[in-house]
Amino acid sequence: MALPATIREYRSQGVSHHDFIIQNVTLSKPRTNEVTIKIHAVSLQYRDLAVSKARYPGQKEKPVPCSDGAGEIVAVGKDVKGWKIGDRVSPNFALDHIHGDVTEAIKNTGLGGQIDGVLREYINVPAHSLVRIPDYLTYEEASTLPCAALTAYNALHGPVPLKGGDYVLVLGTGGVSIFGAQIALASGATVIITSSSDAKLEVAKKLGVQHLINYNTNPNWEDEVLKITQGRGVDHIIEVGGIDTIQKSMKAVRYAGQVHIIGYVSGGDSGIPIRPAIHKAITFRAILIGSVTQFEDMNRLFITRQVHPVVDKVFPFEEAIEGYSYLESQKHVGKVVIKVTKN
Amino acid sequence: MALPATIREYRSQGVSHHDFIIQNVTLSKPRTNEVTIKIHAVSLQYRDLAVSKARYPGQKEKPVPCSDGAGEIVAVGKDVKGWKIGDRVSPNFALDHIHGDVTEAIKNTGLGGQIDGVLREYINVPAHSLVRIPDYLTYEEASTLPCAALTAYNALHGPVPLKGGDYVLVLGTGGVSIFGAQIALASGATVIITSSSDAKLEVAKKLGVQHLINYNTNPNWEDEVLKITQGRGVDHIIEVGGIDTIQKSMKAVRYAGQVHIIGYVSGGDSGIPIRPAIHKAITFRAILIGSVTQFEDMNRLFITRQVHPVVDKVFPFEEAIEGYSYLESQKHVGKVVIKVTKN
Amino acid sequence: MALPATIREYRSQGVSHHDFIIQNVTLSKPRTNEVTIKIHAVSLQYRDLAVSKARYPGQKEKPVPCSDGAGEIVAVGKDVKGWKIGDRVSPNFALDHIHGDVTEAIKNTGLGGQIDGVLREYINVPAHSLVRIPDYLTYEEASTLPCAALTAYNALHGPVPLKGGDYVLVLGTGGVSIFGAQIALASGATVIITSSSDAKLEVAKKLGVQHLINYNTNPNWEDEVLKITQGRGVDHIIEVGGIDTIQKSMKAVRYAGQVHIIGYVSGGDSGIPIRPAIHKAITFRAILIGSVTQFEDMNRLFITRQVHPVVDKVFPFEEAIEGYSYLESQKHVGKVVIKVTKN
Amino acid sequence: MALPATIREYRSQGVSHHDFIIQNVTLSKPRTNEVTIKIHAVSLQYRDLAVSKARYPGQKEKPVPCSDGAGEIVAVGKDVKGWKIGDRVSPNFALDHIHGDVTEAIKNTGLGGQIDGVLREYINVPAHSLVRIPDYLTYEEASTLPCAALTAYNALHGPVPLKGGDYVLVLGTGGVSIFGAQIALASGATVIITSSSDAKLEVAKKLGVQHLINYNTNPNWEDEVLKITQGRGVDHIIEVGGIDTIQKSMKAVRYAGQVHIIGYVSGGDSGIPIRPAIHKAITFRAILIGSVTQFEDMNRLFITRQVHPVVDKVFPFEEAIEGYSYLESQKHVGKVVIKVTKN
Repeated sequence: MALPATIREYRSQGVSHHDFIIQNVTLSKPRTNEVTIKIHAVSLQYRDLAVSKARYPGQKEKPVPCSDGAGEIVAVGKDVKGWKIGDRVSPNFALDHIHGDVTEAIKNTGLGGQIDGVLREYINVPAHSLVRIPDYLTYEEASTLPCAALTAYNALHGPVPLKGGDYVLVLGTGGVSIFGAQIALASGATVIITSSSDAKLEVAKKLGVQHLINYNTNPNWEDEVLKITQGRGVDHIIEVGGIDTIQKSMKAVRYAGQVHIIGYVSGGDSGIPIRPAIHKAITFRAILIGSVTQFEDMNRLFITRQVHPVVDKVFPFEEAIEGYSYLESQKHVGKVVIKVTKN
Repeated sequence: MALPATIREYRSQGVSHHDFIIQNVTLSKPRTNEVTIKIHAVSLQYRDLAVSKARYPGQKEKPVPCSDGAGEIVAVGKDVKGWKIGDRVSPNFALDHIHGDVTEAIKNTGLGGQIDGVLREYINVPAHSLVRIPDYLTYEEASTLPCAALTAYNALHGPVPLKGGDYVLVLGTGGVSIFGAQIALASGATVIITSSSDAKLEVAKKLGVQHLINYNTNPNWEDEVLKITQGRGVDHIIEVGGIDTIQKSMKAVRYAGQVHIIGYVSGGDSGIPIRPAIHKAITFRAILIGSVTQFEDMNRLFITRQVHPVVDKVFPFEEAIEGYSYLESQKHVGKVVIKVTKN
Repeated sequence: MALPATIREYRSQGVSHHDFIIQNVTLSKPRTNEVTIKIHAVSLQYRDLAVSKARYPGQKEKPVPCSDGAGEIVAVGKDVKGWKIGDRVSPNFALDHIHGDVTEAIKNTGLGGQIDGVLREYINVPAHSLVRIPDYLTYEEASTLPCAALTAYNALHGPVPLKGGDYVLVLGTGGVSIFGAQIALASGATVIITSSSDAKLEVAKKLGVQHLINYNTNPNWEDEVLKITQGRGVDHIIEVGGIDTIQKSMKAVRYAGQVHIIGYVSGGDSGIPIRPAIHKAITFRAILIGSVTQFEDMNRLFITRQVHPVVDKVFPFEEAIEGYSYLESQKHVGKVVIKVTKN
Repeated sequence: MALPATIREYRSQGVSHHDFIIQNVTLSKPRTNEVTIKIHAVSLQYRDLAVSKARYPGQKEKPVPCSDGAGEIVAVGKDVKGWKIGDRVSPNFALDHIHGDVTEAIKNTGLGGQIDGVLREYINVPAHSLVRIPDYLTYEEASTLPCAALTAYNALHGPVPLKGGDYVLVLGTGGVSIFGAQIALASGATVIITSSSDAKLEVAKKLGVQHLINYNTNPNWEDEVLKITQGRGVDHIIEVGGIDTIQKSMKAVRYAGQVHIIGYVSGGDSGIPIRPAIHKAITFRAILIGSVTQFEDMNRLFITRQVHPVVDKVFPFEEAIEGYSYLESQKHVGKVVIKVTKN
């Protein structure tokens, strides 16, 4: 395949909200330890909204946005082993998070934030950052995994992993929550989900989620969770709410349970009161995506269970900004995707 | 409920193979920390065959046989908390294996071997040995769990637990192997099973087992396992064969994989060669049933997935010896059960 | 040994701060599953101060105070196995916390808070709550272990246990912090300790603590911690400060490090900000003492290393209130003990 | 530093026992992801004896021998990050064993067996294979770590890691055993060691080993181990003996204990009997060295405790064959080292 001399990429103008523009740039060759990926699809996160408003801590100036891409290898550096042209791959969220715990140096290799991201037609990445895309997934589906799915997997399969038979509570129907539900179900757990919308809960029900709570009609949802669990509380919570939900989550979790701190939709400057945490012996584990090793483990689970990501809506490359606005509107269930190639 | 003054129980005569007879004995009251269980069903293991031939190491003289029973509480000692008349329960295999590792003292509380077992109409056991029977299971089904299911669960959810996406190989279609398959499937694994009979494999297939190998038509089944796993080998093996299968199992397992040593149908005096074990960094973990804590964890998984044990055939109390013979014939798939009560 | 008909015990009058009085009560016989312990020594915690002010959540009315006692068995219930008269023992903090995670029911068996405690001459406790006192420890030393030492052990040897070579930061020189330092040192870690007093730091130095920080002369102690760890931060923190220290602790801990939430000397109503927690992927694990199993594990470590608790001062039984006041003054390093027997 | 055009290296002639010769070869430049190491010291293993006899499974034809070297970086490939000229380093035993489990592909990157090794003046290795040498160690000391120390560390800090307070039995005073003793002591364990020589036991005693057994004067050493542990048995065994010791080791280990299968001095074709393994629920974990990640973890422990490897004897580069013979004589305690540079 002859590679183009120039490619299109989005780049922030660093001025205002969502001020990305498409520009043409020269396609450079991969270094000896890199591959060139032709990006087919990209998915969006809340982090991308923060970056688009220049509010993400540590972001570079005027980055190419987005962390989550899926594509195929079109060129291979000469020292690369184990990868070939045509392989379907995603780069990991943080390029240097190969295994083990995140570090500051690793965090600084986060695509679409600390370094340039994937919202472009081609990208060069180190071979050690690559994960193979499961055969049964389309590029659109695969593009949703690097941030949202891996965050949920890291939460539920960390040092105190989900055991089959556990109860898992996920808050809302955003990307991480829906993946949390799917991973929990695939691992033998019972899932409880909350949402403000019966229509969104219906989507969760189709995935197999056993317990649905509409927090508009049932504002004391933590009591409902306790009822479902016969007063015991859940074993794990995917906590994305922040200040407004954390205290309810602390009531909904069992003694010595695990609250996975993923996001702070309602604010994150303060949050977790210490006294009641101790009196229930709760663990709060804040999650920063995951490693290539965890990504591979997750894919093995997905392949076995043939888990399909929930893609809510797909936007063409030229309408990526509309995708950002749609995500911001919170009308979605699961993931919002941008199709980069026409195919 | 008025309890009978005398009850019927089987007891070995200590003379020859399967020389159990039914006798009438006085029903004693539970101690302050015990409950009285009316036994409804009992299931049989290979261990019971060994005991019936007086070949089980450490067995008491002329024991009441059998370890696995299910019934209901009919009397409660005065210091017992948390249990009441009518509760459906099983005693754990080793009465004092509450949590953590087995010890010599714990092993010496093994029902139907080191101490009198459950093949009788009523039994008194300490409250700490009790496990609640899941509502959705019949007594016949529940009676199969204490030894066979818990052994498989302990194997697959030990210190290197099965991860969703793993490959699990189970040898044959006996009780532990079938439960191993069901637990692995419920936990998100892919299962490979071997058998000499296509009819038995068909039973496994209905449970959801993905890969079936008839080792009569495919004697080099280890090669087939490698083929299925693209040459990598399986992550876990439920090894019940002993001398005749261990070397094939060592070929079928992946580097640094887990071989769970459960039985030795073909002999157990020698077995595992050291040199090839090192050159593949294999772990061999011998299993001695499990604890009350593990039993409860297993039941939570079973409840979530509504796992139903495979009961091959049920014999009435008076025909228990026929049940032993049937087990010995190896015609069964899954478990052989003795119904103690008529109801 | 003939047991007395009546014994002396402290009991709260439920009116005001430290209004305990000594009263004479009848000594009851142990139940069938209990033993009678003659208490020789008791140690004090901050929790005891809270109980003495009727501020401890869930405390019973007018309790016999104190959770931590050491003594010898003087009578044995008839169903008790494994214990005999003369055995040196402590009851666990929560009588029913035998193994595994704390639950609400277990928490409600906390001595000296939810139920009557150990500040009396004799007490009856279930045999399952007992832990053997290591031979090399006096009763005064042993009385310090149940709450303070076990809390530190549970923190450092939980699901993400301390690894030899880790850096551990302990805040202050109170009971839990000093035990945290000793356990970390015994396990192969490097310890950093903070205090407002060079004299107290000197005590820590004698225990082998490698890095001492006076936070009066060095108020930005978190920067000093980062300097000591070459900018990386510590692996584990024993966090007893609460609101005033938690944000500094979050700077002092490494990415993906463990902050063990033990207390809130400076307040506990709010505390942990969510946003920076996520950006460093920190885990906060709140600790509620520990189980009999963990207590036994800890004792094995202490025996091997011959760890001696730091006893600051011993008060006679009749002057227990002075002991409370001394603890409140925060002049101590390590533990304050009350000697119950004269001998 | 100007690098030489040609360097000296040992190479097997592939004919007979110990037929290595020194030859001059051209020094090639490092690839973009490699560094050039000037080797200062090399240590010997039993594996090196097997390779020298062309008996090591999978060894390449006529290899440069030896896996364990220590030296300094003298050139850096242009894509290498994090390493610079002058850094003191060792390459990992298997160059591609970065983290996680060993695989067949990883095993095939074993220095001095599957690929050319370190018994030469300079070597180029990938940057990902490097481990920094602790400052307090000499090159001679550091050269002993890659195989022997890491094997012992992997054994004792694997999925069922040593807990402080455990009993650890090490067989003999060879390299892995002595490191096993040192790592166990540094981690808070009690160590029992066996040897045929009181002089060798004396060396172990000086390291702090608490229990010494001369198996010549005490051939039933397993009974002695049981006596030391009050009949309970040890928690971990470093098993290097093979056929002649395995059954004694199975008596010496506690129920549900860990036997780490490291070597087979007395033979390895058969070995572990299955029946008694089950009746004690023993785990046998065969070890194949370890990963870069484990190596770094081990070094952190060593630094904290200032552990010094036991170097028995150092031979100059030109007398490497004498070093092999000395190792074969089994007169050593700890490690035999070859000094490559004069300095």
